Amino acid sequence: MKYLEDVIRNNGKVLPGDILKVDSFLNHQINIEIMNEIGKEFANIFKDTNPDKILTIETSGVAIAYATSQHLNNQPVVYAKKDAHFNMSSNCYECKEKSYTKGIDYNVKVSKEYLNKGEKILIIDDFLANGEALNALLTICKEAEVEVLGIGIVIAKMYQPGYERILKMHDNLHILAKVKSMSNDGSIEFE
Amino acid sequence: MKYLEDVIRNNGKVLPGDILKVDSFLNHQINIEIMNEIGKEFANIFKDTNPDKILTIETSGVAIAYATSQHLNNQPVVYAKKDAHFNMSSNCYECKEKSYTKGIDYNVKVSKEYLNKGEKILIIDDFLANGEALNALLTICKEAEVEVLGIGIVIAKMYQPGYERILKMHDNLHILAKVKSMSNDGSIEFE
Repeated sequence: MKYLEDVIRNNGKVLPGDILKVDSFLNHQINIEIMNEIGKEFANIFKDTNPDKILTIETSGVAIAYATSQHLNNQPVVYAKKDAHFNMSSNCYECKEKSYTKGIDYNVKVSKEYLNKGEKILIIDDFLANGEALNALLTICKEAEVEVLGIGIVIAKMYQPGYERILKMHDNLHILAKVKSMSNDGSIEFE
Repeated sequence: MKYLEDVIRNNGKVLPGDILKVDSFLNHQINIEIMNEIGKEFANIFKDTNPDKILTIETSGVAIAYATSQHLNNQPVVYAKKDAHFNMSSNCYECKEKSYTKGIDYNVKVSKEYLNKGEKILIIDDFLANGEALNALLTICKEAEVEVLGIGIVIAKMYQPGYERILKMHDNLHILAKVKSMSNDGSIEFE
């Protein structure tokens, strides 16, 4: 998605530690117009899949899934929660996620009330690096016996293991901006 | 907001421990149509304030602030983060928040890049009970020297101290559904 590559080049920052900082528009401050274009693009990619629900993971996936739903068919968005939420039903699907950026483990949870056996699910998230969050979501979907129709990711670092790992688990995987390399001078190359 | 009171009566659940569970449409599964109505209502309430940005707090505030922005003027939505986020700039406004529902303390953070002195801010969040999250956001706004134009909250438990506490800090406080009482049989009374 050329538009998004330009947005990332103009608004993203490459930080030491192989970090691509996009929090000026994607995951701390949200630019509504950009999010809307992202949602439109995912809706176009997945328009023939006809999902019952969109599944994402807190926090940065929420606005993206929301925008996508608005351009599809206003399907409910379910967001997986990280960590133990005290007033969440104990009746949850759970999976461990190792976060490399934050250096800690999360417990990813989705209430059994909101994933019903046989439902058709579209998974949407912001980043794919090592694939830990997506692995957790796919594991939960398998346990819940829902059908994953596709996976849409805004940005993937293609030189990290996540893309190949997730592709082996699910082949209808779409990435809007495929980062081929980033250098310390701030330049970003896309595939 | 009569519409929302009906939604809460039909879809909310009263759980032991004075918990109003609305995660079937508001804060785990998101109902896009309901969120859209909430956004429309906030936009109508605050249409003359003309904010530069909408500030909320992760995770449940994000979709509400997003929907509100879409019905106002597509202002950027900034969401405060809870806890220490490893790859977030150390250049942050911070405030401690005590969460009664989760029994733990959070560090509420907003990057200094996304609150600029003199900006006009609308604060949007899902719940007001003890007012801890709003207190943290207002404290951060004061430190950032931004001007808070108004506060919009979806649901407040009016019998808890938060409403009076926050009203003393900021008087343009609007609540869409004011819960007067809840009983163990599941009935909910609104003001």
